[in-house]
Amino acid sequence: MPPVIAFVGKPDCGKTTLLERLIPELKRRGLKVGTIKHHVHEFEMDQEGKDTWRHKRAGAKVVALASPTGLGVIRNTDHDPAVAEVIARYFSDVDLVLAEGYKHSDLPKIEVFRSAIHAAPLAGRDQSWLAQVSDVCPAGELLPWFGLDEIAALADFLVEHFINQSAPPRATLLVDGQPIALNNFVEQFLARSITGMTSSLKGCEKAKEITITIRLNDHADR
Amino acid sequence: MPPVIAFVGKPDCGKTTLLERLIPELKRRGLKVGTIKHHVHEFEMDQEGKDTWRHKRAGAKVVALASPTGLGVIRNTDHDPAVAEVIARYFSDVDLVLAEGYKHSDLPKIEVFRSAIHAAPLAGRDQSWLAQVSDVCPAGELLPWFGLDEIAALADFLVEHFINQSAPPRATLLVDGQPIALNNFVEQFLARSITGMTSSLKGCEKAKEITITIRLNDHADR
Repeated sequence: MPPVIAFVGKPDCGKTTLLERLIPELKRRGLKVGTIKHHVHEFEMDQEGKDTWRHKRAGAKVVALASPTGLGVIRNTDHDPAVAEVIARYFSDVDLVLAEGYKHSDLPKIEVFRSAIHAAPLAGRDQSWLAQVSDVCPAGELLPWFGLDEIAALADFLVEHFINQSAPPRATLLVDGQPIALNNFVEQFLARSITGMTSSLKGCEKAKEITITIRLNDHADR
Repeated sequence: MPPVIAFVGKPDCGKTTLLERLIPELKRRGLKVGTIKHHVHEFEMDQEGKDTWRHKRAGAKVVALASPTGLGVIRNTDHDPAVAEVIARYFSDVDLVLAEGYKHSDLPKIEVFRSAIHAAPLAGRDQSWLAQVSDVCPAGELLPWFGLDEIAALADFLVEHFINQSAPPRATLLVDGQPIALNNFVEQFLARSITGMTSSLKGCEKAKEITITIRLNDHADR
């Protein structure tokens, strides 16, 4: 699972603008970047009147649009999915995920703050807070600080913290959509056993990513 | 992997309208339905100006929007993904997938035809063609035929063909995104081995779906 960093801040502090500038900076460093926006209001993606929009309105649980240049998948959910679940399921092929929101999660967090707009930064910080990006250097602040235009320095900071030092896990396990914590022994055991079991199958010789899904008691929950 | 049926036909024959009517009819029969639209022109999903749209434009490879009621994931692709890959990866929790397009695939196909709009149905049929839905009963036609309003009968036909008779596979295997064909022995072997290996892990006791992803030589392809 790639590392995920949450960018948090009060409304209109410029989170999206910061990500728009940070993404190309990270790409320039050779990284494949993903983003996830956490949205607590009514879900809206897709364009009204499009065929996929019509499929979904008619009651499809999952709709996809597949083309040579892009793939989009939209699904109904009956709960706010855990960010770890979304990352494990959909972001396995990126190096780093930038999240917008998830203030109340235990993700590592970077606050975006503009004194021109808000009187004070967010309160209630804990050890998950990594750094602050803002228009004024905060007095007495213990966190690393970056100015709003110090995008290259921020990208270097993220690479240093999350890419150079992380050994990505070899195996991730989802059970009914929930990620299961694996200690190093179990992770290596699963990774090596399954790599071994599949290695002699046609098409698996040069595998870089192996995904197996097993369904038990199919159709029992209809 | 759930069964997939492709609805094909000339432009404006009413494929989307048919699916809009068929989806609720299938849901009424207790099925979870997914849809996939195959689009050969420029990809467009999401709404211009939205945060996810801005992330993607800035260069994110994968963007997601997560909320309590819906989850959307949009990714760049450099090739037209195989329908089997998309289904295996994103539709594991539905019972049946209705595809719009994929005329040239080997999916089972149903043609939608309206004589009021086109002079003749599509040519070049093979044994993958299952049925025709049209405004006139075709003379000398060997395929099962349904009128444009015979939605309930069409739903019954699909349930009979694809749900009542299919024993869904217990294990699906993707290698670098490509589905690998498994014979029954290998499928059962993988399903039982992995179910066994994970069954004693905390959180796996009552698993209905187990997904494991293994990455080898991580970061080697940057």
